[in-house]
Parts: sequence; structure tokens; C-alpha cells
Amino acid sequence: MRIGIYPGTFDPITNGHIDIILRSTMIFDQVVVAVTTNQNKSPLFTVEERIEMIRASLKSLDHIEIESFDELLVNYALRKKASALIRGLRATSDFEYEFQMALMNSKLCKDLITVFLMPNEKYTYLNSTIVKEVARLGGSVECFVSHFVNEKLKVKFNLT
Amino acid sequence: MRIGIYPGTFDPITNGHIDIILRSTMIFDQVVVAVTTNQNKSPLFTVEERIEMIRASLKSLDHIEIESFDELLVNYALRKKASALIRGLRATSDFEYEFQMALMNSKLCKDLITVFLMPNEKYTYLNSTIVKEVARLGGSVECFVSHFVNEKLKVKFNLT
Amino acid sequence: MRIGIYPGTFDPITNGHIDIILRSTMIFDQVVVAVTTNQNKSPLFTVEERIEMIRASLKSLDHIEIESFDELLVNYALRKKASALIRGLRATSDFEYEFQMALMNSKLCKDLITVFLMPNEKYTYLNSTIVKEVARLGGSVECFVSHFVNEKLKVKFNLT
Amino acid sequence: MRIGIYPGTFDPITNGHIDIILRSTMIFDQVVVAVTTNQNKSPLFTVEERIEMIRASLKSLDHIEIESFDELLVNYALRKKASALIRGLRATSDFEYEFQMALMNSKLCKDLITVFLMPNEKYTYLNSTIVKEVARLGGSVECFVSHFVNEKLKVKFNLT
Amino acid sequence: MRIGIYPGTFDPITNGHIDIILRSTMIFDQVVVAVTTNQNKSPLFTVEERIEMIRASLKSLDHIEIESFDELLVNYALRKKASALIRGLRATSDFEYEFQMALMNSKLCKDLITVFLMPNEKYTYLNSTIVKEVARLGGSVECFVSHFVNEKLKVKFNLT
Amino acid sequence: MRIGIYPGTFDPITNGHIDIILRSTMIFDQVVVAVTTNQNKSPLFTVEERIEMIRASLKSLDHIEIESFDELLVNYALRKKASALIRGLRATSDFEYEFQMALMNSKLCKDLITVFLMPNEKYTYLNSTIVKEVARLGGSVECFVSHFVNEKLKVKFNLT
Repeated sequence: MRIGIYPGTFDPITNGHIDIILRSTMIFDQVVVAVTTNQNKSPLFTVEERIEMIRASLKSLDHIEIESFDELLVNYALRKKASALIRGLRATSDFEYEFQMALMNSKLCKDLITVFLMPNEKYTYLNSTIVKEVARLGGSVECFVSHFVNEKLKVKFNLT
Repeated sequence: MRIGIYPGTFDPITNGHIDIILRSTMIFDQVVVAVTTNQNKSPLFTVEERIEMIRASLKSLDHIEIESFDELLVNYALRKKASALIRGLRATSDFEYEFQMALMNSKLCKDLITVFLMPNEKYTYLNSTIVKEVARLGGSVECFVSHFVNEKLKVKFNLT
Repeated sequence: MRIGIYPGTFDPITNGHIDIILRSTMIFDQVVVAVTTNQNKSPLFTVEERIEMIRASLKSLDHIEIESFDELLVNYALRKKASALIRGLRATSDFEYEFQMALMNSKLCKDLITVFLMPNEKYTYLNSTIVKEVARLGGSVECFVSHFVNEKLKVKFNLT
Repeated sequence: MRIGIYPGTFDPITNGHIDIILRSTMIFDQVVVAVTTNQNKSPLFTVEERIEMIRASLKSLDHIEIESFDELLVNYALRKKASALIRGLRATSDFEYEFQMALMNSKLCKDLITVFLMPNEKYTYLNSTIVKEVARLGGSVECFVSHFVNEKLKVKFNLT
Repeated sequence: MRIGIYPGTFDPITNGHIDIILRSTMIFDQVVVAVTTNQNKSPLFTVEERIEMIRASLKSLDHIEIESFDELLVNYALRKKASALIRGLRATSDFEYEFQMALMNSKLCKDLITVFLMPNEKYTYLNSTIVKEVARLGGSVECFVSHFVNEKLKVKFNLT
Repeated sequence: MRIGIYPGTFDPITNGHIDIILRSTMIFDQVVVAVTTNQNKSPLFTVEERIEMIRASLKSLDHIEIESFDELLVNYALRKKASALIRGLRATSDFEYEFQMALMNSKLCKDLITVFLMPNEKYTYLNSTIVKEVARLGGSVECFVSHFVNEKLKVKFNLT
């Protein structure tokens, strides 16, 4: 069984992330959505909230596992018996950073490869930071995130 | 069975290509190395020579199929029942072009995703053009290509 | 009256070009679509064909002028009393080249500024070369170009 | 009347910003220099100081309006009846971010286009952060900012 | 005597930095490794610790001087009678920033040129931030930094 | 004695090239301007003309040697006892290519390092191709090349 790990902060999960997860299930037998606890990024949502939003945003959870992790990514991947890391690519700046991480991870663990997937072009501009900024200022983000996440953002920013 | 197609000119196949093929077999049940006939690029080697060099450069052909194609890539992929295209990524300039091709292909065929793999960092500088240029001027390319390809290049450039 | 010049090869005009032309008419009183004769690029279509396709692809020609030019772009722009050059931007590789051209043109003519517009994200992957390649191999390009251009491409490649 | 909005932090305004404002007045009937209140960037100068420096740095205020805003940029632009956002472009890293913002804004408001202008090549290296860093260490920034801003920086860093 | 200055935070020095220092000694008669005090980056190690780690990581200190500086880089370079600044280049994102700094520095001091060196491809993925992140999570960084730095990192993160 | 080799096509030499040569003489005891014979690029000027233009464009030839070469660059560099290759950097697209070449050359010859220099920002937009294009269309290139090269271009394009 081929397992792919899709790590990220998911603060919150966007339609771009969902697109990558769906594409991943076409390649891997099992996809692990791995939420970093990510203390030094001071996320808007707690790990529990982020996991809840991921679960609620996916129509089906077949072949998908969602959990948090707080260790070196390659160690976590080894422990999960994953054959690959999954990363979404949007634009050049993404690519540079992802390239660096992929090289580092392959250095730390030779047998772990990184698979890059490109989301639908509708999502090339999307990221969680921009979604939070728009939501904070009262803009509508309903076509960027699931209904569940949209409601959670409104509550967080006292916009209801 | 998950089939991935790795298209390219392979004029000639380098150690970077081989690295991508091996990584692909860790993800897919079957990897099709698809050689474009590529008339307007006026390749150094014929399609037959290029296929011969690919075959000779791979230690094992388990789960690997090598053939040429002369049609729209997405049509070819559909006909082969492939679930994904495989592309190697080296540097930013690569990425831009690959990004464009991947978006175009997903537009032409919605169900066909593109999977990007990154070769070992030893090969980030390698491409067929630079190998041919070095070989043409009599430089040694034996650590960039297989022994078989190295010999073929020497013959092609009358260096033996 | 503010005149903007949108220079290009338009071999052939795509929906991305049309999008830029429409955006330009929201900024300028008059938009000149200026077709370069472009001998050293050996275009697929003649200048006359390319102009015909531009004309046929635009729903309205209000505030739009289409003509060819065969001189230094800045001289042409001065002669047309243009206040700006218009360029479409897609991805980074575009940007580098466009940056260089804009700096060169501003050096050749201080009062001529370059205005960059970004097409709808649906068109970020589109360019004339890729359209011709897909059409040549018999792929459908009807959602990338106007109906008129689509027919012209079929005739050119003997696909009807 | 065509109105263009040039949003930014302007902490403080540099000669590069001034160059973009002047170019904008060649394209638009009215240019609104819109200062973001920008709390989470913790600017060196208050909004009032930043507006004062912009006003003092421009030789003429014909067709120019300067004000602050604290809402979603596209909403502000709609309220100002602007037909375009104006952004300066310097280098690739700029471009990626600006590209993403422009796509997001066009998604939030279809009729609002983004116009990119390139400053004189003298200013391609200039940004407010680097100016503040140089000024803080006692370096001369008099050829990067107006006389007024130069004096303000000296006062801020107790260098007089 | 030609003096080159290699400025940086070195928090901590990696094998990539060491590679650049060694290459620099092949070009310059004297190489000054200049550690920025860098208060606003809140480094993990003190200036003294960072200097100690640089000294311990270099096999030979011939033609090499290590010191800290807390002033405008170009002023420091003038005071050291340096003929060039030395910077390592890894990837595009590096390049953009370095380009900007080099232009700014040449503006502040015309006679001071910037020399860019590229580390061995083994180190293109390496930077101090990633090393600290891996070390913090208990990953092995012994092939990225010297033995001395490796030990210091373990102590810092209470991993011994 | 430290020898640096500055290889290129120089078809023709521009003020940007001259700037790099002058900067190189501040770092190296001897700078070899090495003109590639470059058959497959079909240059506008012969090697002899290109060398003549380089010689005529430099005010002083102290510490500068000009010659052509037709062999593998690293072999040529070894034969000249050079300690480094010199390359000018302008923009990102340059960088990607140069990065690749530098890695390849360091692979072919471990002891040969590549030194990158950045021209004055006035020349960041300049390259020989754009100069030839402007000159061919009758535009003035007198501020981009030396007087001697300007005259040669006029003769070549029958503009006198």
C-alpha cells in the first residue's frame, strides 16, 4: 500500500488544499493530511479546530487520514510508513522554498521522495494568509473555502 | 493499476532522467517512458537510438515501458490509460514552463494530473543540451550519463 | 486623448490577448493593437491574416485600432502620439523579458511609459506557441481562441 | 473620469514611489495615494506622519489625492469609484506577490483591474525597509528620499 | 593586498558558509568574516558564540579574519580597506535580495563591488534557519555543520 | 598572479560588458576576455571584428588580454592557468542559466570557481541582442555601446 503524507499548517484549509488532497487520492492508496502544531507561526486556529475544519471540508474521508504531528517531518513519515511527501505548488516563490525543503528532506531520509502537485489554476492565487486577511476585513471568502470554514472565520473575527 | 507517463525528448537520456524514472517506480505500478518524435527540435539522435539508449541505461526494466509517440500528449496518455503525467523539476526556469504545460494539459484533459518529482541535488544542473555541448568539445561526460550513452556520444562526435 | 499601444506578434490572437485588449479599453481612450511584421520569428500566419483574425475575434472595435508596424517600437509609439505601451504579464519568465524591454524603451524614449496588465487567471497558461502546437497535433483549441481563429488553424494544418 | 488607486504603507515614501505616482498621473485623471493603516506591520511612522511626508515629497498635488484607509482594498476602491489599482513592480519577488494579490482582488471584484508600472531603473533596488535600515545606521539616504523625509528620518533615529 | 568582506549572521555557520569562505581565499589575499550583531533578527546564538563557532569550524585561519560589526556595511568595508563584498548565492529568491543589496551598496559606495560565489551543489539547499529547525526537532545535522557547531546546537536545544 | 577569465560571445561588446571587465580588474591581476567562436549562434560579427571592437572599446588594456577560444571552457581556463571564471549577472533568467553552467563547470573542474559580478544598475537591461535589434531598426544605441561599436553597427546595417 502506497501512503502519501500531505503536511501543512492548514490555518485554515482552503479549496486549494482540498484540490491537492483529491488529486493525491488519485495517486496514493492512502493520504495522510498531517497538521503541524507549528507553535512559532502563532496560527489563528488551534490544532483541534484546524483538524475539525479539514474533516468538515472533505466530502469523503475514504483513503484519507487526518492527524497532527510535532516532530521532524521525515521521522513522522518513516513512522507512518509513507513512501512520499506531497506538496502543492503555486508559483515560483513557493517553488524555491519547496525545492529547498525537498532537498533537505531527501538528505535526512534517502528513501523518502517528494511529489509535487499543482492545483487547478483557479487556486493558484489562494493561500490561507490571504484568506484570513480578506475575512478579517469583512470580505467574502465563500468561494475560497468550504461553508464550514467560512462560518468559523466569521465567528473568529466577530463578523456574525 | 496506476500508470504514470514520463514524456521527454531524451536526446540523450542522462543520469537525471534515470533518477526520475527510478523515483517514479516508487509511486506508480507502471511507468511509461514516452519519447517524443520531436521533429522541430532536430535531435542529435534518432528516436530508435534514443529508445535504445534509455533501455541500455536502466538496470532493470521491471514496471517500465519505453516507446515513442507522435500525437497530442493528453491523447496519448488517455490511450495508455495513464492516471498521471510525470515531470522532473530542476530550477525555476523549468518550473515556469512545466507549470504552463501542466495547466494546459489539465485544461485539455481534466482527469489527467501532473506529478512533479525532483531529482537528487547532484543532478539539478544536468540537462541533455549541456551534456551534448560538453561531449562535442571533447569533455568527459561519464559521470552525467550511462556508459552506453557515453560511448554513443563519442561515436556521434567522432571522438573515438 | 490617452492612447495606449498593445504591440505583439499575435500569431494567432488568443483569448488571453483579447482579455488584455478589453482591460486596456477600460484605461485608455484609444487602444492601438500593433502587429509586428516580425520576419525573424517566421510566423505561421501572414501579417494580413493575423490582422484579420484580431478584427474577427473582437466583438466591438470601438476605441480600438489595428495595424501593423515595421519600425522601432518607440518611434512608432511617438508617431501614434501614444502615452503608454501596454503589455500582458503571465508568469515570471515573461516578467523578466518584459522588464528588460520596458527599461530599454524608457531609455530610448523617456516620456513613454509601459503599463502591465494581468489577464484573467484562466489565461495565465495561454500563449500562441502552445495553441499552435496543440492545434497542429489535432487537439481542440476552441476554448483558447475565437471561433474564427479556430477555423483558420484547422485550415492551416489541413485538419478540416 | 478615470481614477487610479495607488495603495501602500509608504513608511516612508521613497523616490521610487514618487516616480510611480508621477507615471500614474500620465495615465489616470485622478490618482489616489491610499495609505494602509497596517497595524500588524508595526510601521516606523504614524499614518499622519506618512501622509504628511507624501504631501511634502510631491512637487504638485494636481490630480492627486492622499488619504488613509482601513478596509478591504477592493471595497475601498469601489467606494472611491476607481477603475484600477496601481502597483509598482521592481523585481521578480515583487512580481510573485503582486500577481497573487491582483488575482485575488480581481476575484473579489471583477471590474477592478490592476495596472503595473515599472519605476525608472534607478529605483529598482529601492524600498522603504532598506532606506530605514540605512538611515538607522547613520548612512545617507538623501538621494533615495525627498529632503523632507530625510529630515524626518534623522529626527526619528536621533541623528541630528 | 586585496581584502574581501564576507558579512552575515552566521547563526550558526554551516558547511555552505565554510565552502564560500574557502572559495573566497582563492580570490582574495585576506577574507574578513564579518558577523552582524543583528539585534532585530533575534539570533539563537550570541555574537561571541557565533564567532567562536566560525573559528572552530575552519581548519585553517590563514588569510582569514573574524570579527563582528555594528555599523553600515559599506562604512565598515571602507574602514577595513576592502575592495569587495562577498556573498554566497543559492537560489533565485536569494538572488533577488542579494541583487537589491548589491545595488544599494554600490549606490552608497561606488568603489565597493560585490562578488557573488556559488557553493558546491551539495549546499544549495542549506541555510542556518533550516539547520536550526531540524536540530530543534532532534534531527541529525552533522553533515550540514561542523562537529563543534553540532555539539553547540545539541546543548542549546537540551538534546544531550 | 590571479587570472580571471571572462568568456562570452561579445556580439558586440556593450557598456555592460565593459563595466564588468573594469570591475574584474579590481579583483584579478589579469583578466582574459575570451571570445567564443560560437558557430551555432550565427553571430552578426566575425570573431576578428568582435575582438577588434572589444579592444577599441576599452580605454586601457592594462592587465587585460583579449583572445578567442574554441574548446571546452574549463580546459581553456586550465590552459590559461586561471583561478576563476567571471560572469556578469543581470536578472533572474540570467541567474538560472549561469547557476547551471557554474555547477557544470565546477563538476568538470573542481578547482575552477565562478565569480559573479553585477553591472551598474544602468546596465541591468542591456544585452547584445537588444542592441542589435534597436540598431537594425535605426534606433540610436550610442549610450549603450562605445562610439567604435556604434559606427560598426551602422555600417553592418547600411545605416550610414
